[in-house]
Amino acid sequence: MSRRAKTLEWREGVLYLLDQTRLPAEVKVVECRTHQEVGEAIERMVVRGAPAIGAAAAYGVVLGAWEFAGEDEEGLWRHLEAVLERLRRTRPTAVNLFWALERMRRAALNRRGQGVQAIKEELEKEAHEIAREDVEANQRLGIHGAELVPAGSGILTHCNAGALATVDYGTALAVVREAHRQGKGIRVYADETRPFLQGARLTAWELQEDGIPVTLIVDGAAAYVMKKQLVQLVIVGADRIAANGDVANKIGTYGLAILAREHGIPFYVAAPLSTVDLRLKSGEEIPIEERSPREVTHIFDYRVAPEGVGVLNPAFDVTPNRLVTAIITDRGVVRPPYEENLRRLVGFPVLM
Amino acid sequence: MSRRAKTLEWREGVLYLLDQTRLPAEVKVVECRTHQEVGEAIERMVVRGAPAIGAAAAYGVVLGAWEFAGEDEEGLWRHLEAVLERLRRTRPTAVNLFWALERMRRAALNRRGQGVQAIKEELEKEAHEIAREDVEANQRLGIHGAELVPAGSGILTHCNAGALATVDYGTALAVVREAHRQGKGIRVYADETRPFLQGARLTAWELQEDGIPVTLIVDGAAAYVMKKQLVQLVIVGADRIAANGDVANKIGTYGLAILAREHGIPFYVAAPLSTVDLRLKSGEEIPIEERSPREVTHIFDYRVAPEGVGVLNPAFDVTPNRLVTAIITDRGVVRPPYEENLRRLVGFPVLM
Repeated sequence: MSRRAKTLEWREGVLYLLDQTRLPAEVKVVECRTHQEVGEAIERMVVRGAPAIGAAAAYGVVLGAWEFAGEDEEGLWRHLEAVLERLRRTRPTAVNLFWALERMRRAALNRRGQGVQAIKEELEKEAHEIAREDVEANQRLGIHGAELVPAGSGILTHCNAGALATVDYGTALAVVREAHRQGKGIRVYADETRPFLQGARLTAWELQEDGIPVTLIVDGAAAYVMKKQLVQLVIVGADRIAANGDVANKIGTYGLAILAREHGIPFYVAAPLSTVDLRLKSGEEIPIEERSPREVTHIFDYRVAPEGVGVLNPAFDVTPNRLVTAIITDRGVVRPPYEENLRRLVGFPVLM
Repeated sequence: MSRRAKTLEWREGVLYLLDQTRLPAEVKVVECRTHQEVGEAIERMVVRGAPAIGAAAAYGVVLGAWEFAGEDEEGLWRHLEAVLERLRRTRPTAVNLFWALERMRRAALNRRGQGVQAIKEELEKEAHEIAREDVEANQRLGIHGAELVPAGSGILTHCNAGALATVDYGTALAVVREAHRQGKGIRVYADETRPFLQGARLTAWELQEDGIPVTLIVDGAAAYVMKKQLVQLVIVGADRIAANGDVANKIGTYGLAILAREHGIPFYVAAPLSTVDLRLKSGEEIPIEERSPREVTHIFDYRVAPEGVGVLNPAFDVTPNRLVTAIITDRGVVRPPYEENLRRLVGFPVLM
């Protein structure tokens, strides 16, 4: 990556988060020294993107553990439960958050009885491990996915499933990065992705920083670029994938999948296996976060809609498996029937 | 209409345009005293919406005629040709502009040889006639369309096809207004419609002013509200309708039509017959305006995308006739086959 600022970075007991609410106008880093600060940063979308949220929350647990100054392990356990609960309450849809928090809890349990210090150290080690694994998983995912990208393709993407949505490299954009690295001569069409404008603010920015050709469009222009044959495939990320292959992702994804089908364009979902939630039979069971009307009525601090207007602001939608051509994971490309093939790949229910 | 400010108003030789670039934050009126000022107002989208552009351009011709201070009729004709040409060059897609300018030219021709004063007076009379007819056509259109609206419906609309897009009353929103007036207990879901945010800024505002229930959503949430069965029909306006029923309208319309079909929801287009262009066999022939990248990279004066990023900003798209359930016009509801039924209704090629 050519970027200077990292999505998240841990240095000497402080979690540094690149403030994604300000990009690209301002490259500002937020320092988190407590688990509360991490929780608020996740809620405010200073850090966003399912894998990045998971890693940030893991470091939040480390900060939480270090907040505990006592020496009695039972006190630490009680405190850790409160920390985990606080971080669980930040955002409901992305499963990587719960997956990472559960991994942290189990890591701590492995040191049960070995004292406060040993538990704290184990937690820090585990958070680093989660972060390191995320980057490696994304790189593998990119290699698997690049095989699906024909030379000279236009690739439509939605929201930001990039380096900024992960610890580094990205999911959908890992595929883009690898295809570009292989000299396939690709071009990305980035939906701006209202209301939070992740496409305009984050995807366009990080691709431009890496010298990958990118054209920005409004969300409503997606069908137009498909009709004009400017894009040959769609790749998006995921916040949670149910056992049957239904995919929760940023609002607008479901519509794109329908448009892709209509135009005979493959629709790919790129996500590490930590995004798969085998406990849920279908996407119907995935909780969908509704966010503040203000995200729609205001753009930054500028009001664009009349005062008092009703707003519906679902942050995610669910794309049914029948519209998903394949799911690109760190362990290979999964095709229908997803029920069977996801279970085979995961091998066992993902830790929860 | 409960609104105080009108989309456009002619008083004592001045055209007053409600500045739609500022709404709803600011209710400001722009005064046009020359045809150049009208041309610039259309280009800057101070006034927008196919029928409103047509009426504004007609008054632009009146202002142009009054600019000519001489007494020789040939001089006036030369000047008028330049005025018409200037106004034609403002925006390429909406046909009502060309239709209104052609009506004005013919009105003037009817007074050929009767002197400068007679021609000027005829032009002013014709512009008033165009404005008056627009309101009446919209009211009739609303009555025809309301028959298609089941009681208790959620109605999805895109962009602003309202009072602000016409001289008054609206096209798609004429149907909404009439259904509401009949006590059908409807609710409108308004797409915000990036990049110009006509849905958030204009549709939400004018419906709220009239006390009609409205919920604002981002463009990407349209498929979600359909899936959740919050809307039972879609009604949009049109900028140009080809002889075969293909419809050019605000970017995003084509995608909505596909989504409506996918969810088994009827997709209606509401437009006066002046929007039908029988000279064009299909939508393929409709010129699509591309507007400045700045509309996408900036929201008002705030930059949201990185500098230097590529942008594709088509202002319109074309919805093929097979996705249009019916076209609601001032002379009744037209259903497929459009080729035959539009021609029968129009009776003769619309003046051009």
